[in-house]
Amino acid sequence: MRADRGPREILMELACLDLEGVLIPEIWINVAERTGIEELRLTTRDIPDYDQLMRGRLELLNQHGLKLSDIQQVIAGMGALEGACAFLDWLRERFQVVILSDTYYEFALPLMKQLGWPTLFCHRLEVVDDRVVGYVLRQPDSKRQAVQAFHQLNFRVIAAGDSYNDTTMLAEAEAGILFRPPQNVIDEFPQFPVARTFEEMREAFRQASIRSL
Amino acid sequence: MRADRGPREILMELACLDLEGVLIPEIWINVAERTGIEELRLTTRDIPDYDQLMRGRLELLNQHGLKLSDIQQVIAGMGALEGACAFLDWLRERFQVVILSDTYYEFALPLMKQLGWPTLFCHRLEVVDDRVVGYVLRQPDSKRQAVQAFHQLNFRVIAAGDSYNDTTMLAEAEAGILFRPPQNVIDEFPQFPVARTFEEMREAFRQASIRSL
Repeated sequence: MRADRGPREILMELACLDLEGVLIPEIWINVAERTGIEELRLTTRDIPDYDQLMRGRLELLNQHGLKLSDIQQVIAGMGALEGACAFLDWLRERFQVVILSDTYYEFALPLMKQLGWPTLFCHRLEVVDDRVVGYVLRQPDSKRQAVQAFHQLNFRVIAAGDSYNDTTMLAEAEAGILFRPPQNVIDEFPQFPVARTFEEMREAFRQASIRSL
Repeated sequence: MRADRGPREILMELACLDLEGVLIPEIWINVAERTGIEELRLTTRDIPDYDQLMRGRLELLNQHGLKLSDIQQVIAGMGALEGACAFLDWLRERFQVVILSDTYYEFALPLMKQLGWPTLFCHRLEVVDDRVVGYVLRQPDSKRQAVQAFHQLNFRVIAAGDSYNDTTMLAEAEAGILFRPPQNVIDEFPQFPVARTFEEMREAFRQASIRSL
């Protein structure tokens, strides 16, 4: 351990990415389109209180008799966003990457395979007889807590996300990037640079890095 | 957050793997074979004091005029261990995986590409004009500290490694597995199950998991 080195020299960089809206489509919006249940379109962009949002979603699934397998069928057909796989490949060659998401492993895994199994930290559903009866958050404010844990491991973190539930992660990181955010998030968080294409994301990560990429 | 749930229910599992000796050959042993510098064969299996081991290695490189590019050339031709890619693919479909290694990013990256860019936490070399002038450990006892950080994120950790520098990681994890360890490590750490093939590793992870895999 070269304790005599300056922090700029000893820091190693980690990239933390949101999943929905950055690498894959918004899952609930796609389920809403295919089921015709308009209320399922709501996301953290609309309702910042995540527990309130999720309890509403599970009530809707129950009301309409939608099973986990029904939703998984929809998700399996979604595919990653155009350019997302190429961007993630570019990022993984230059940074160690951890995906920090508020989705659920039961939903995300088919799409993780399409993305080449990047490491994903998210949450878990409670399922009984193919019915989603509840959800288990790994911990509250999990994205921010993950960045804090990576800081304890002496990583310098560059984070990118698109919505409200990403902003504590972006604020905790040494550098935060907003990807295709809605106008209300841009207005509330003017301190974060905005990328609207994956090429702009690459440039934002180059700018945020302490290395020449 | 379902605080009323039991720990068995809320825990999500993470797999932490050592790199050299588990997924790829021991880098320094391969460099020793190709350069004929016998002293470079020594590993943490022989010298538990890692700083003492590394200072000796850098002195040897300097004495023999070996540059970083010389070593990288050797490493690029090594390739992963037979069956390692298939095992890692199997593991990534069932666990979120983070590789915890005491190697250096400058050495490992060509092989990480062959493994499909799994997330790697390791260390960094100090290089001046293609000469390795020093090394920077991200932190001391870094593998154990990583497992502790994952615990703070409410992950249940299953760890696998082959040598002395893995044993604090194995002890910190909920379950530890020794892969092809030398007899002295087996003798000193009889509490850890031993896997000698990747099929035995799969079975060891199945046994260690709280889920049915």
